[in-house]
Amino acid sequence: MEQIFSKLNFITNGEGFTDITDDLNLFIQKSNFDSGIFCLTSLHTSCSLTINENADPNVLKDLEKFIKSIVPYNCYTSLSKEREEIYYEHFQEGEDDMPAHIKTALTNTNLSLSFQKGRLILGTWQAIYLWEHRFSTKKRSISVHIIGKKKSSIYSSKQSQ
Amino acid sequence: MEQIFSKLNFITNGEGFTDITDDLNLFIQKSNFDSGIFCLTSLHTSCSLTINENADPNVLKDLEKFIKSIVPYNCYTSLSKEREEIYYEHFQEGEDDMPAHIKTALTNTNLSLSFQKGRLILGTWQAIYLWEHRFSTKKRSISVHIIGKKKSSIYSSKQSQ
Amino acid sequence: MEQIFSKLNFITNGEGFTDITDDLNLFIQKSNFDSGIFCLTSLHTSCSLTINENADPNVLKDLEKFIKSIVPYNCYTSLSKEREEIYYEHFQEGEDDMPAHIKTALTNTNLSLSFQKGRLILGTWQAIYLWEHRFSTKKRSISVHIIGKKKSSIYSSKQSQ
Repeated sequence: MEQIFSKLNFITNGEGFTDITDDLNLFIQKSNFDSGIFCLTSLHTSCSLTINENADPNVLKDLEKFIKSIVPYNCYTSLSKEREEIYYEHFQEGEDDMPAHIKTALTNTNLSLSFQKGRLILGTWQAIYLWEHRFSTKKRSISVHIIGKKKSSIYSSKQSQ
Repeated sequence: MEQIFSKLNFITNGEGFTDITDDLNLFIQKSNFDSGIFCLTSLHTSCSLTINENADPNVLKDLEKFIKSIVPYNCYTSLSKEREEIYYEHFQEGEDDMPAHIKTALTNTNLSLSFQKGRLILGTWQAIYLWEHRFSTKKRSISVHIIGKKKSSIYSSKQSQ
Repeated sequence: MEQIFSKLNFITNGEGFTDITDDLNLFIQKSNFDSGIFCLTSLHTSCSLTINENADPNVLKDLEKFIKSIVPYNCYTSLSKEREEIYYEHFQEGEDDMPAHIKTALTNTNLSLSFQKGRLILGTWQAIYLWEHRFSTKKRSISVHIIGKKKSSIYSSKQSQ
């Protein structure tokens, strides 16, 4: 067993989903690993890592619609002196910031996926998404870490049989 | 350290919980592993893997009741031409399909559990459930993957001491 | 690759967050591991392990406020004979028990974090919290399990190069 650590960076464009499945598989292949566990951790508290459907884009729209329906934005104006208008205590970083922390808590920031033959083991209809919860463009870093067997070592062991 | 990959299949009977704890422990024992990490990934986007209470069956009823209370079904009829009646854009696979994707996103499809002496390390009151979110009977596949130490190798090393 | 298993105990004081990040890093360092995967499992069904912001304490207050707003307590009195007043079927262990199981299901009890140079790989603003969902003081046990490379073995292999 060997391991490798790295970071993958993604630019998001406001609330919504970025399919990172191909980037993850590419990282496995470039790292020359055959099989093992692939640990992903989003290094942020206002976006998620989530596994969901890869076929109909409306699924992603509806996920976004639903999460907005249960997590309200902060209804404040910077001019307002009415304390009652503020739903969240943490409002200083924008009306979308505290809702983003909540959405992150309700979903995942950490996944430990299995892979074989250089590819993640996923169902036919599954993709791995970086789910952005902030309004603006963000640079997001994902910690990637593999523990597993390298292709070359498997080749070597077959050679020596 | 060695690893093994497989899939476990379960038949679910509509919305509700299937306790898979014993099946997972059996897989560890049959695989002859003593200790390590056990990675589980549901290969579907409309059911969950979740850890919850194993004692009172009413806990599971109440979990189901709660999740239904926050995730609405799609109120559409195939005869309707009124677009307003459709809550989700993704409605083509049944009124329970989009709610199932949402319930999956709010819970987990991926767990990485520790085990020792051939058994998962869990609390007294914990069980691992496959949580079905669709109405009908489904065949569900769980990817199972162990990285750890085999019983035989521990036995061997004791022998050689 | 080597592994180590242990348990860490924490005393919680009712609903709220305990930052356990330093305790986890200390465990890694005491165990003399350099790099690997750190599997955490809460052995309970009424508290969570969650990653969220470490800077403004109001974020934690707002998380607590939000989760209470979507998961109702059980409105029953032990004197009441009116079945209608009971929202959950599972009410025997207190009005905060079933809500705690639900909050656990909506968040996480299991994390698999990566670490390097004896420290967890986390973002600048991330902390790992034990999130208590019960009213009273509780002793909580977290299963901790590392698979990785020890500091000494890395030193040895450098020596022998």
